[in-house]
Parts: sequence; structure tokens; C-alpha cells
Amino acid sequence: MDAEEFRRAGHAVVDWIADYWATLGQRPVTSSDPPGTITAALPAGPPVHGEPVDAVLADLDRVITPGLTHWQHPGFFGYFPANTSGPSVLGDLVSSGLGVQGMLWATGPACTELETVMLDWLAGLLGLPERFHSAGRGGGVIQDSASSATLVATLVALHRASGGRWRDVGVDRRYRAYTSTQGHSSIEKAARIAGLGDDGVRPIEVDPDTLAMRPEALRAAIRADLAAGEVPTIVVATVGTTSTTAVDPLPAIGAICAEYGIWLHVDAAYAGAAAVCPELRWAHDGLEYADSYCFDPHKWLLTGFDCDAFWVADSAELVGALTVMPEFLRNAATESGAVVDYRDWQVPLGRRFRALKLWFVLRWYGVEGLRAHIRSGVALAARFAGHVLADDRFELAAPHPFSLVCFRLRPGDENDVRSGDEINAALLARVNGTGRVHLTHTRVAGRYTLRLAVGSPQTTGRHVDEAWDLLSATADALLTEPPPTTGRPPTTERPPTG
Amino acid sequence: MDAEEFRRAGHAVVDWIADYWATLGQRPVTSSDPPGTITAALPAGPPVHGEPVDAVLADLDRVITPGLTHWQHPGFFGYFPANTSGPSVLGDLVSSGLGVQGMLWATGPACTELETVMLDWLAGLLGLPERFHSAGRGGGVIQDSASSATLVATLVALHRASGGRWRDVGVDRRYRAYTSTQGHSSIEKAARIAGLGDDGVRPIEVDPDTLAMRPEALRAAIRADLAAGEVPTIVVATVGTTSTTAVDPLPAIGAICAEYGIWLHVDAAYAGAAAVCPELRWAHDGLEYADSYCFDPHKWLLTGFDCDAFWVADSAELVGALTVMPEFLRNAATESGAVVDYRDWQVPLGRRFRALKLWFVLRWYGVEGLRAHIRSGVALAARFAGHVLADDRFELAAPHPFSLVCFRLRPGDENDVRSGDEINAALLARVNGTGRVHLTHTRVAGRYTLRLAVGSPQTTGRHVDEAWDLLSATADALLTEPPPTTGRPPTTERPPTG
Repeated sequence: MDAEEFRRAGHAVVDWIADYWATLGQRPVTSSDPPGTITAALPAGPPVHGEPVDAVLADLDRVITPGLTHWQHPGFFGYFPANTSGPSVLGDLVSSGLGVQGMLWATGPACTELETVMLDWLAGLLGLPERFHSAGRGGGVIQDSASSATLVATLVALHRASGGRWRDVGVDRRYRAYTSTQGHSSIEKAARIAGLGDDGVRPIEVDPDTLAMRPEALRAAIRADLAAGEVPTIVVATVGTTSTTAVDPLPAIGAICAEYGIWLHVDAAYAGAAAVCPELRWAHDGLEYADSYCFDPHKWLLTGFDCDAFWVADSAELVGALTVMPEFLRNAATESGAVVDYRDWQVPLGRRFRALKLWFVLRWYGVEGLRAHIRSGVALAARFAGHVLADDRFELAAPHPFSLVCFRLRPGDENDVRSGDEINAALLARVNGTGRVHLTHTRVAGRYTLRLAVGSPQTTGRHVDEAWDLLSATADALLTEPPPTTGRPPTTERPPTG
Repeated sequence: MDAEEFRRAGHAVVDWIADYWATLGQRPVTSSDPPGTITAALPAGPPVHGEPVDAVLADLDRVITPGLTHWQHPGFFGYFPANTSGPSVLGDLVSSGLGVQGMLWATGPACTELETVMLDWLAGLLGLPERFHSAGRGGGVIQDSASSATLVATLVALHRASGGRWRDVGVDRRYRAYTSTQGHSSIEKAARIAGLGDDGVRPIEVDPDTLAMRPEALRAAIRADLAAGEVPTIVVATVGTTSTTAVDPLPAIGAICAEYGIWLHVDAAYAGAAAVCPELRWAHDGLEYADSYCFDPHKWLLTGFDCDAFWVADSAELVGALTVMPEFLRNAATESGAVVDYRDWQVPLGRRFRALKLWFVLRWYGVEGLRAHIRSGVALAARFAGHVLADDRFELAAPHPFSLVCFRLRPGDENDVRSGDEINAALLARVNGTGRVHLTHTRVAGRYTLRLAVGSPQTTGRHVDEAWDLLSATADALLTEPPPTTGRPPTTERPPTG
């Protein structure tokens, strides 16, 4: 495809996306087709001779978009959002067009330097401690996700805890990682990948009201492990847990980590973005104790997936843990010591030019534009929580400091054999089954709980109100229909064959 | 940015890329600016209020592109290429615009199913063994890079070698990985990440002529480790090593792995793409022994970075090694067992919709278009090798079965105090310093060797001939100028301050 063919086809694809966004709210949020529907609609192999882009775009409409979960839909309230925006898409498009592979400074100086500068901009925007800025010993890098950030933090922590021995001999002692019972599953996965095993992760209990880690429980677990000859290696504290956006008490946790010489990684994947607003920076109190920190601009800062921003306080330690230097990568710039080679800050070798999308987003929105987006999400969540509070049938299941609301229907009357869990699972399945919204669930203190997370730039008060009206009307039906007296009611979301 | 603003700005960005591609050959391949140049040209923080896209595009021209290494330039012959193409950029653009996060089948059914189908298409296109097709127990997935594929293979191999114990207790024995002395640095990095340590990797010696792994040396290393109570876990064989594109003998290696029950991963990151041409499939002989295999469409198959295609023969074993199921990801589709959740096939949780760019590329070029691209690369490399062979001052350093040529100047006359390594390093520094080409280097049998890798779709016979003319003329100057009699000549590429 030459430059002129690209120009023509590129305009058509841009128009396709603009039309998709303009009509997104009219689509069902999720597909109701059973597994295999898309597969069955595709040929068994590639064409022998090339086809025009128009043919692919036609199949995009015919086969692909009807089979999607539309994450950018104004009615998408599931998981945490992964929101993109026009400027992010354009920055990514420039990155794709340049096709630069920035594994070394030398293989793309501007790719590396813009990334360092963007991470410094973000550090300033969030008011992060000075230790993470590149002017000192610290610095930031883009990881694909908070999962990879946690893995990288775990690896440097092993390097430190072993006194450098881990690089040569691997995991030869019982290294231990700590996180609250509400910590993300990626912490367990990172420990498994790093060779600590699932047994290497100590789940620390939380306060029953705030769902935040109890520092005294952390200290007790560390002491018990030390007494047993195990090696406390890393604590992963969370600012905004996935289940309920609980905030672990960093000052107390940080002091314990400092006392025992344990690496502190702070995972603020979702909620970190809130710190662009000064009034929400309280969640980062104590962050000066952290050895590493991350948040995901791809969740709540209008930057398309993937873009996790990860900082360390001592980049030399990180590079020491991860670098491997084969002959074919040797170059004068690296040997001069004057440059950053980001390949040594991550698991893979190769790297895309992801800083461009951050640059486009930060410049298009500006500081005030980003703050307005965060404040809108918090306000919409509060609006939804207000609906919940005003309805006696429902209850809030946890505080909602950011833009996630956890709630549930209270159990039905004593004649209803359905448990609270069953009724709430049925409620979720029915509202999602309409295709007008998509919510997901969690368990809070063991109880099935619905989650509504606001994030899409297309979501307005009207969409939140409509979601509430739908939930309320569905609850009416659920609670007034004759309760089942035999058998089991549906307890899961719409089955995929439905 | 609303849909109409995106439409206008999107056309401008598409035009910017088309213009960039049309003028690429007129730019220097690399920047000659010292480290810090880009940083110094950027403001200290983001703007308070948003700026228009035009302002960002202007800075792209002013600050970013002059500071890049242009990987798509027709004169870029370094490393292995990472080539993109128009249809790949467009597929990626659609992916960015949809903003789907395909961690689960349920979070993007079409994202998952198109990926499975594209990996099946690729398996057919390359003539891979049936065991990797999704119709049976196998299947493919997109990883970011071959580094991550090797890591994932190492993790499943540990799961198998430990009888599943590794998941719970981690690395509690001395597990060992094997690769040739020419294996990629990512194998050492994967072993380090997985907790085996650098000592856990056994470098196996190669045949001095072919630079391919010697099977008898592999067997001896395995036996020695078994005798020492260690646990042979994974063999990584390479089809097309990074240094010289050597091809390890898979039939003999595979038989040894089968005999000892060791996981065989085949890393064909660069050269695997050649198998789209039936006449080049010989390099995959013996692949039926492999438990896992990968190649990078982002290297030599016109698909933008990142896109590594990774297959396993038994996907259940892979999922068993990597899955972690928190409540907030539970869903009916997963519990039905009828779907693939690709989050369990990789390190991170989240996933982009990368199958779209493969779909666009495979349909735009068709099978014959892709074959023509590979054949062009092989022919251009042969053309360059012909120039080397016809000039007595030069020699080929290794066979060139694909599109990489390894060559060097023979040492100067006996009065020249410069070593062959010094002269070749100076040759590389001087030709790269012109900005007209970019080559990189390796060492073959300890000797400094230049590498010329063809891959850009813009590279033609004229560019290869110009590269040769430049090398030849530079050699004239190097060999005829008075050799230094004191001090040390430059031995590295152009210093970054130059």
C-alpha cells in the first residue's frame, strides 16, 4: 500500500471510527450471540490475492462490531473503565505510522526522551513525591498494564532482598509478598511468575468498614515469616482496590516497610488518576515511603489501553535487576551511560512509541480538562449513589470516594427462599440482558455485590439516571414476582448460549 | 473531542503519515543530536488549558521526527526490521477507535474469536503442524514479543516439570533451561524473571560452520544436570538466530526433548515468516516435536510492532499454569467452559484488539502478496551478498538463508596496527554516520561482524546497491588512509555527542 492509497483508505477508516462513536449509544452494550458466532462467519483461511480495504470495513460492520462488548459505550459501567479519547487515538495512530521500536535510546531517541518527559509531566500533574522524578535517581516508564508493573516491582524487590544473588541463582529462599485480601489478582500472578508460588503471597486482613489493609496485621505476618526463616520481600499496597476502591493506609504501611527494609509498591491502577485533582490527593498520603508506584492512564485518564505509568525511586536498582546485554544491542550511547534504555525497565525487549498518545492527550485536554473529566466521574458516581440511598430496597456496600459505586438489593421478605446473593445475581443478569447497560459484580464480606463504575467520556447524568431507572424497575419485577418455591433460580449472568 | 472534531483531526493525521512515508527516504535514517536534545525542546509540564491538534503536529515535525531512528526508512538495515504497512496501521487504528479490552471472551467476543481465527490462518499460511491449530488441543495467541512468548513457555514448562507443584510453592528445585550459545538474550531474561537465575540457563555449543546447536552437546548437558540432581525443564531452539539467522536442527533436538520429557519451545521470531513460502519451509522441519512455537509478524510480515504469534500444542496446560480467578472476573461464559479467555495465555491481564491488524494485513496482501514480500527480502539479501563475494576485501561471515547478511572487511595488511575488529567497527561507525543507512553489528566466533538485514517494504535493489557502494567507498578510505601508528582508533559507532 503506497502513501496515496494509505491516504485514501486512512480517511475512510477515520470516518468509520467517527461514525462508530457517533452511533455508539444506539448499540447494545454487549453482544447476545453465543460463542462461535464470529468464528463461523469468517472464512477458513486468508485470500490468495489481496482484497481492498472497503471489503474489510464491510466485514467489520457485518461480523465484528455486532460481536463486541463496547467498552466506550456510555452505558458501559463494568470492571474499571478502559477509556480512550480522540487525541489518544490520534497519538497512537502517529505511533503506528512511525513504526519506531524504542528498545534502546539509540533505536529512537525521541521515543525514549518523550516518554521520560511525559512521565515527569504526569508525576507533576498527580503531585507525586520528588523521588519519582527523573531529575534525581528515580524515573518513570510506560508498562502495558499494572500487572506488569507489579511483576517488575516484584523482580527488583527480589534483587534487593537477595543482595543481588537472585540474578545469578534465582529463587533459592522462601521470599514472601504481602497484599491485602482485597489486592488485585495480578499480585498473585506476579508472584507465581516470579517463582514464589501462590504460597508466597500473604493475604493481609482488612478493616471490615473501610476494606483497607490493617497495618497491625501486616506487621504480624511479617514477624511470623521472619520467625519462620522466610524472607519478607515486597508489600503491595493498593490505592483504590478493584473490588470497592478501598485505600490502604500508606503512612502506616510505609513505616512498617521502612522498619523491616521491605520494598513497597503502591498499585493505584484505577484511582491514581484522581490525583490530578488536588482535592483527591489525600489518597496518596504516605506515598513518599514507596519504592515504586503505578497508575493506569488507560483506565480513567482518557488514554487508550495499554498505558500504565510506573515509577521507581531508584532506576539504577531496576536496571541492575533486569538488564541483559548481548553483543547485537551494544552501542555507543548505552556505553556512554548518558541515556536511558527502557528495555531494561520491563519484561519484553521491544517497545512501541506509547508516549505519543500521552502527549496528545495531555496537550489536547490540558490540566483543567483532565480535572474536569475526573470531577465529572466522581459527581456521576455520587449521583448514582444518591439514587441508591434514596431507595430503601437497596443499600450501598462500601464507600465511594472515586467513581465506583458498590451496591445491592437488600434480601427479600422472609417467605422468599432466594438468598440475597441469588436475587442480586439475577438483578445483574436481567439488567445486562437488556443490552442497555453493562455492570459487573464483586463480593464484599462474602456477599454478592453489584458494581457501577463511571468512566466513559460519553457518559452523562442521563445515562446514569437511565441505569438507575432500569435497575429500579428490574428490582420491582424481581421482588414482586412470585418467588420460586422449588429448584434454584438463576444465579449467574445471562448464559452465553442465550 | 467529539466525533466531528476527531474526523477533521484524523484526516490531518492520516495526511501527516502519508507525507511522512512519501518523504522518508530523503531523511537521515538516524538522528545525530546528542542525548537531551528532545528533552530540552519540550516544556516542563502540560498546558493548563487544552491546545489544538495542529499545534501538536507542528511540534511533531519540529521536535520529534528529527530525533528519531526511522525504522521504516528504506536505508534501515539494523537489528531485525520491525516493519509495518498501510493495512497494519489501519487495522491498529480501528483497534484504537473501538477501545475494546479483550481480557476475557465476555469482554470482547469478536476480539477473542478473530484472534483465534487469525492464528489459525497464520498456522495454515506457514504450514505449521496440526497440533497447533485450535481445532484440536492446541491454539495460538498474540503476545507482545518473542521475549514474552519465551517467558510464557518457560512458565508452562515449570508447571509441567514440577507436576503442577510450581504453581503453589514456586521454584523450589534447580530447574534448568537450555539454548544454544546463539540463543536470544530474552531466554536468559525469561529464566531470570521466572526465578531460575542466570545460572539456570545452559548455553549449548554450536557447530562452527552453521552456528546451529549441536544436539550431542545438548544431550550431554541434560545428562550432566540429571546426574547432579537438577531438573531439565525447557529447551529453546532457534529458527533464525538474531546474530546470523542460524537454524537449529529441530528433528534431532526434538527427539532428545521427547526422550527426556523436556518442553521444547521453538523461537522463530524473525525467520518464521519465511515459511509463508513453501520453498523456505525446510527451516521448520522437526517442528512437530515442539510444545510451543512463535514468530513475529511484526518483524518480517508487514504487521506493526507489537505482534508475536505464539502457539502451544496443549492450551489447557498453559491455562492451568497461568490462571488466577478473582470474583470480579467471574462470568457465565467462562464458567460454561465453551470459550477462550486469553488473559490466561499471557503475563498481563488486559489485552488490545491486535488481531485486527493481522486481519487487515492478511486480507490486503493475500497469500501471494506476502510471499512476494518475503521473496523480495531474500533476493535483496542475496544481491547484497553477491556484492560482498565479488570484492576480495570483504568476506561473508555466515550463511544467509533468509534476508540477513553477515559480512566484514578482511584485516588490513601486516603494517596496519588496527585489528580486524577495529577496522570493521570504524567502517560501521562511518557508514552509519552518513545518515544514509543504518546497519548494526554482532560477533561471529568472537569477531566483530556487520549485519545488513533487509525488511522495509520501501527497500529496493537501488537501496541495497547504494548501501554497498557506500560501504565499498568507505572501505577504500579506511584501507588507504595512513594507518594509525599510535593511540587507539575509534572502535564504536558514532558517539551520541557527535
